[in-house]
Amino acid sequence: MKDAIITISREYGSRGRTIGKRLAEKLNIPFYDNEIITLSAKESGFSEAIFNNSDEAPVSSLLYSLSMFGAAATTGELPLNDKVYIIQSGIIKNAASKGSCVIVGRCADYILKETPDLIKIFIYADVKDKIEWAIEQNGIGPDKAKDLIVKKDKKRAAYYNYYTNEKWGSAKNYDICFNSSGMSVDDAADFIDLYIKSKAK
Amino acid sequence: MKDAIITISREYGSRGRTIGKRLAEKLNIPFYDNEIITLSAKESGFSEAIFNNSDEAPVSSLLYSLSMFGAAATTGELPLNDKVYIIQSGIIKNAASKGSCVIVGRCADYILKETPDLIKIFIYADVKDKIEWAIEQNGIGPDKAKDLIVKKDKKRAAYYNYYTNEKWGSAKNYDICFNSSGMSVDDAADFIDLYIKSKAK
Repeated sequence: MKDAIITISREYGSRGRTIGKRLAEKLNIPFYDNEIITLSAKESGFSEAIFNNSDEAPVSSLLYSLSMFGAAATTGELPLNDKVYIIQSGIIKNAASKGSCVIVGRCADYILKETPDLIKIFIYADVKDKIEWAIEQNGIGPDKAKDLIVKKDKKRAAYYNYYTNEKWGSAKNYDICFNSSGMSVDDAADFIDLYIKSKAK
Repeated sequence: MKDAIITISREYGSRGRTIGKRLAEKLNIPFYDNEIITLSAKESGFSEAIFNNSDEAPVSSLLYSLSMFGAAATTGELPLNDKVYIIQSGIIKNAASKGSCVIVGRCADYILKETPDLIKIFIYADVKDKIEWAIEQNGIGPDKAKDLIVKKDKKRAAYYNYYTNEKWGSAKNYDICFNSSGMSVDDAADFIDLYIKSKAK
């Protein structure tokens, strides 16, 4: 099979990250998620904590505000979050240039849009399943879980829309969009795999 | 396997209708497309020609205008296209009530939204492939083909958005959205089939 660079965007609670990880295992190719953050942090000298936060809130975040009023702004440099985005973009491009891989989140679909053999996936799920997942993951009640999934997805959408000028979750930005509710992680990974294999024929 | 009511919305030139037909053959279940129109026409007494046109232009069409200024409007009845929509909805609901089937177009996903085991698909394709398809199907040149696919999809979107208040092609209205470019009709049908079987487990 020729190279397959697979990007996964996902709603919080859709198990998109886990599905991506399983897919990478099945295809025996690298998987990038937190690894990218770590790599980026090491390469740039920024602390890992900053990178962890930067994914969540591109605009009006504390870090963004700090950067606007901090050294970067006064010296006419880019805001901190934009710097982080640029460094992450470099890491993502470098990872993809090495061959087949799965990359979750971080606008990778947009960053790699000129890459041949790019397969862009968007995974969502029924609200009730996302709430259940959030309860399990965080040990919180249903009301808090409901709030959390709304907030998480708002932040992911804002981050994506801010850096790409595209609309997060708009079908035609992706090769496949699907609702993972009622599917096992294994079956969801097989489903993506079948699509890749059909295209590669 | 339990019943699977599968609706397919598709861009013009994505081969969505053909993929749906192949899927119905594979699953050995009924396929509804032009059949619905014919059934509707026979049942309602409207001529088949009216039904064929009604799918394409819900607003500002000649038929719509005629209906507004014709007998239906002056007697306070519904516009003709709305009547056709209501009759078609009845036929679609009746078809789905009989068990597993594939239904292409005609807002079937929206009409059947309360149906258990509904699987909603949206199929699109790369512009270059849609143009190629339109050239082949209609024996026209590339420029005309390009115009045609834009017009056809505008009409499909307008029809869908008018009758459903939802957005045609918005990922989360469907269970799967996918780009069929570079896939064989057979592989695309298998891809949908795998999803259905994963959900039915």
